[in-house]
Amino acid sequence: MPSAGPVRPTDRSSAALRPDASAVLTGDGLLGQRRAVNASVSIPQGPERLEEAGNLENLRAAARKESGEAFRGGYPFQDSDVHKWLEAAAWQLGDDSTATDPGLPDRVQEIVGLLRGAQDDAGYLNSYFMLAKPDQPRFTELVWGHELYTAGHLIQAAVAHHRATGRGELLDIAVKFADLIDASFGPEGSGKPIDRIDGHPEIETALAELYRETGERRYLDLAGYFVDAHGRGTLGSDTNHHMRLGYFQDHAPVREAKAVTGHSVRQLYLLAGATDVATETGDAELRAAVERLWAEMAARQTYLTGGVGAHHSDEAFGHPYELPNERAYCETCAAIASVQWSWRMALLTGDTRYSDLLERTLLNGVLCGVSLGGDRYLYDNPLHVRDGFADQEGAGGSHGEGDDGGGRRVGWFRCACCPPNVMRLLASLPSYVASTDADGLQLHQYAEGTVAGGGLALEVATRYPWEGRIALTVREASAGERTLSLRIPHWAREWTADVNGQAGAGIDGARSASPEGRGRETGGRDGGWLRITREWAAGDEVVLDLAMAPRLTEADPRVDAARGCAAIERGPLVYCVEAGDQPELGDGYGLDDLVLDVAAGLAAEWRPKLLDGVCVVTATARVRGRSGNAGWWPYGDVDAASGEVGEAVTLTAVPYYAWANRGVGAMRVWIPRV
Amino acid sequence: MPSAGPVRPTDRSSAALRPDASAVLTGDGLLGQRRAVNASVSIPQGPERLEEAGNLENLRAAARKESGEAFRGGYPFQDSDVHKWLEAAAWQLGDDSTATDPGLPDRVQEIVGLLRGAQDDAGYLNSYFMLAKPDQPRFTELVWGHELYTAGHLIQAAVAHHRATGRGELLDIAVKFADLIDASFGPEGSGKPIDRIDGHPEIETALAELYRETGERRYLDLAGYFVDAHGRGTLGSDTNHHMRLGYFQDHAPVREAKAVTGHSVRQLYLLAGATDVATETGDAELRAAVERLWAEMAARQTYLTGGVGAHHSDEAFGHPYELPNERAYCETCAAIASVQWSWRMALLTGDTRYSDLLERTLLNGVLCGVSLGGDRYLYDNPLHVRDGFADQEGAGGSHGEGDDGGGRRVGWFRCACCPPNVMRLLASLPSYVASTDADGLQLHQYAEGTVAGGGLALEVATRYPWEGRIALTVREASAGERTLSLRIPHWAREWTADVNGQAGAGIDGARSASPEGRGRETGGRDGGWLRITREWAAGDEVVLDLAMAPRLTEADPRVDAARGCAAIERGPLVYCVEAGDQPELGDGYGLDDLVLDVAAGLAAEWRPKLLDGVCVVTATARVRGRSGNAGWWPYGDVDAASGEVGEAVTLTAVPYYAWANRGVGAMRVWIPRV
Repeated sequence: MPSAGPVRPTDRSSAALRPDASAVLTGDGLLGQRRAVNASVSIPQGPERLEEAGNLENLRAAARKESGEAFRGGYPFQDSDVHKWLEAAAWQLGDDSTATDPGLPDRVQEIVGLLRGAQDDAGYLNSYFMLAKPDQPRFTELVWGHELYTAGHLIQAAVAHHRATGRGELLDIAVKFADLIDASFGPEGSGKPIDRIDGHPEIETALAELYRETGERRYLDLAGYFVDAHGRGTLGSDTNHHMRLGYFQDHAPVREAKAVTGHSVRQLYLLAGATDVATETGDAELRAAVERLWAEMAARQTYLTGGVGAHHSDEAFGHPYELPNERAYCETCAAIASVQWSWRMALLTGDTRYSDLLERTLLNGVLCGVSLGGDRYLYDNPLHVRDGFADQEGAGGSHGEGDDGGGRRVGWFRCACCPPNVMRLLASLPSYVASTDADGLQLHQYAEGTVAGGGLALEVATRYPWEGRIALTVREASAGERTLSLRIPHWAREWTADVNGQAGAGIDGARSASPEGRGRETGGRDGGWLRITREWAAGDEVVLDLAMAPRLTEADPRVDAARGCAAIERGPLVYCVEAGDQPELGDGYGLDDLVLDVAAGLAAEWRPKLLDGVCVVTATARVRGRSGNAGWWPYGDVDAASGEVGEAVTLTAVPYYAWANRGVGAMRVWIPRV
Repeated sequence: MPSAGPVRPTDRSSAALRPDASAVLTGDGLLGQRRAVNASVSIPQGPERLEEAGNLENLRAAARKESGEAFRGGYPFQDSDVHKWLEAAAWQLGDDSTATDPGLPDRVQEIVGLLRGAQDDAGYLNSYFMLAKPDQPRFTELVWGHELYTAGHLIQAAVAHHRATGRGELLDIAVKFADLIDASFGPEGSGKPIDRIDGHPEIETALAELYRETGERRYLDLAGYFVDAHGRGTLGSDTNHHMRLGYFQDHAPVREAKAVTGHSVRQLYLLAGATDVATETGDAELRAAVERLWAEMAARQTYLTGGVGAHHSDEAFGHPYELPNERAYCETCAAIASVQWSWRMALLTGDTRYSDLLERTLLNGVLCGVSLGGDRYLYDNPLHVRDGFADQEGAGGSHGEGDDGGGRRVGWFRCACCPPNVMRLLASLPSYVASTDADGLQLHQYAEGTVAGGGLALEVATRYPWEGRIALTVREASAGERTLSLRIPHWAREWTADVNGQAGAGIDGARSASPEGRGRETGGRDGGWLRITREWAAGDEVVLDLAMAPRLTEADPRVDAARGCAAIERGPLVYCVEAGDQPELGDGYGLDDLVLDVAAGLAAEWRPKLLDGVCVVTATARVRGRSGNAGWWPYGDVDAASGEVGEAVTLTAVPYYAWANRGVGAMRVWIPRV
């Protein structure tokens, strides 16, 4: 049985790859460790947080179905936190390899029961509208009401619950609600009353997944309708927020849009849904659109960490190459949405670049969103926190604490979209590891554990991403030739591979092992795949060894924010320097006074007790002198001496995903260079 | 009679300088030209815009005093646009040297009549609360209602009307409202019912000015109460926007605040009021606080243009040195508020640095806010608009058009705070030109016209800021020694001065004429003043000649956004490059592909027909090569070759204040340098 997880293209789909591999992540490798914390801390804590925030009380009040019951407070989409937690719990229940709270099945059943109790006879279920606006017709507050968004998360939770546990109670609730939506929404002439979209996408991918789970074609048709109903400006008429339509991606049809724009989570959930529809229908125009938009996002709107969404204002994508480091919004949910979309693109196309970005985003832009202890979160994930930030007065975020651009982790947010989103991604992570096709098995991500599918069952032994050696041992193989495809990550400059100790044996179509230039595309379907085709036998061993030397990275010069800077990377990990790790910095000097000496070498060192075990990278920097008399005005004549730098200090960099786990302080990813 | 204008410290105040000079700005110098357009286009258009936006209809509805009249729409502070326009019109009516609409006095009287009609018997006047919330007690919606902010603008308009025209109708209305406020607000134990502040400062400076105009001490006391009532968190209890208190400057008392923070216009209006109170009361602690906060703002939170407020989100100050160029919010109103505050500081202290920043902000950060034609405005004033911005989909502002960071000028805003603010500043500009003290006359700003006060009457002949020669001819002088003080601008690297053709005659206390380093402070009260003390006679001539060579400027290295860049300046003007002025740039290349050759020279050239007459500066840049195969990912290995640059092109830069007058396109102030 494949790992229970999202995105299950049907056999009738045009997907190049199938998701029917199973993977188990074991041991204390980075991903196994993060998943163990998710299962043992984050998910079990969820119901407490939902209780404290009033989410469950809202549902209880709705379930009582007595008039005069008040909405306990929160946003119109308050139920969606519950649904996302349920989805996370469901994936977790389908994973018997990771220890979780033994009471979890009961908590899930209890909350499913609440939802069943709250659903009305027509199938409608949303505690905000049922309690706060009982007399308002359904689906009339589409711009800011999030009714279909919230319904979409319910449907996704139900699909997860059914896929992971085989139980049908939640799916029944979701189907009843989906049928109400299907009866209510449709194009002009369809006989359905409402020809409009919700202000927040999510229903599109949810309906596509419901089609996959139930086989009911009309859910896919409705998903396609919602995708294509964007771009007609129907959200413009009753918005009183004066947002432009681009915020909602209602400015242009998905098929015609030139670039990702507007609210980043809305944009990426919509494109995940569009990709699902293109995958299932084989619609070439829609596929070309999502390929084009993904390429635009990756090349011009994505941070080194994989984070997306530059602006705090509107939580939105910026302009091409506008990627400010401080105040990089990089919402945790947007990184998760990027992972979800990239995986759909990987399955649709079979191209490794999608899993390249997925890996980068997961290990850097998503993992940073939850503390190492699993109980504190970040909403926004900047790439620079200034010296003195901790003393800064007043600068605030708008989602409560934890989104002020300074890495102050909190236990929950007033707008709590991110925490259960992290939970559901980590719980479903094994399904992003491998795929199959007619020829065999593809490994997209590397982590200690087992992978099976496409006629092969493998054991994976590796300390990746701390070490580059990945040893695969065949435990079972079906008869005949099978192709094992290994993704050579785009960051890998040198690598070797051998089969049963023989270098190159049966290896075909791989990229050159020589160092390559800046993200150069080698082209072709096999560009990033190392293919090994042979008759396999139990005990066969493949060793892929990716060179893991730490490296210095620079940005396209049009990325103004990284002008004249370098960043430290090692393997798939982006590094940062945190002020507390730099004892050589003198009193009164901070990270913003440093200049990286790019001619000096980098060194990596394993620190088992630091940050649950990380490989640190050390570099050499110089402390920029400061005039003792800088005056009242910070601008002056261009001065040839301004590039002069002072004494050398050793800098210690830690993986970005682990930042802000030891208090609030200055941090930099991009460091000015000599 | 001194020029009618704001800020009239009383004789009992502790101000170092008195505002009782009169100045007339004539001719077609830059400021004279901008004021003429303000008087002949912007101000006369005001009532039409206020009619279209519903502001006047709101007041008419309120004046009918019939129940059931509806608020015509707009913000709770909608009346403040009317008040600010009235203030502008009043200053204009007091200036008989500048041609304006002959119907202006009647329009003013008509609108004053509307206000009188709308005011209730208790003195209250606010069409939003009177129409939309007739049954709500006054002053209960303090966080977002802007009741005292709107009242403050009414009071300022009334002070202007009385000062400029001598008429009392509007002042009577304002006094009646101020007395209601005075009866309503006060500290615990005062017997007044409300011990809280308004979410948007403005009442503080308005009450201080009302004290100055009426002599009623209790208005000053109330202003002082409101200043010191900040920082107690009283705005925290009923905000539902989850803003931090710093947004409202309610996080710390003004006397204790370490740096400017939060919503920039709120912060600066508050500090203008605090400066008024410190000036009138001689409160040394409050004076030290405003001096400290101004220095923090100037050294760490101000753009090269004088613009302030880095964030679109919350329209707020950023962190120290966080000054992004693209998406620099730099609200026009914040620049105006900075000018208003700096002038108060200049009068209080006599220090030239305040007028240095004032000049920079006025000529760069404010003038850009209105089109050369006087009928189109910018809300935000970025320092960088990217190539391709004009084709960008969807990225939007939240105040209607004109605040999306791209320089799209519009005729009016939904939130129309900026246009009438520009009008009132330009209309009152003569009062920012000169001051007096017991010894004589100080010239703070240079423009063609006349200046009189402190026992001297001068004619000023100059083409400043296009040329650096300022010729002053004494028309009248009182008997005995008088000191003429001329501000040597902080940007001036070299200058000469002579009296009746004799270099140095009677010149005392000036700064060195040798070039100085980056903003170095020379210290002492006379630091920036050139003092000429003598017995003056009609016909005496003083010539100050400021060297106007264009220059390249760099930023403190902690200003990350300007890292590795230079900006072009000439005299007090900051320059920018606009894409349309660069015919040598090849097809497919844009401003973001340029690298400035700082070793090549700059040249200035007068272009009488360009942008109503500007001096352009030409520089040499090189076009950075682009890989033909940049790939899907914009980050790659640090590469020694990445600094290589291509062929030379001539760049033409125009003054920043004149940008975005020829359509939407790319623009840069800071240019990467070789």
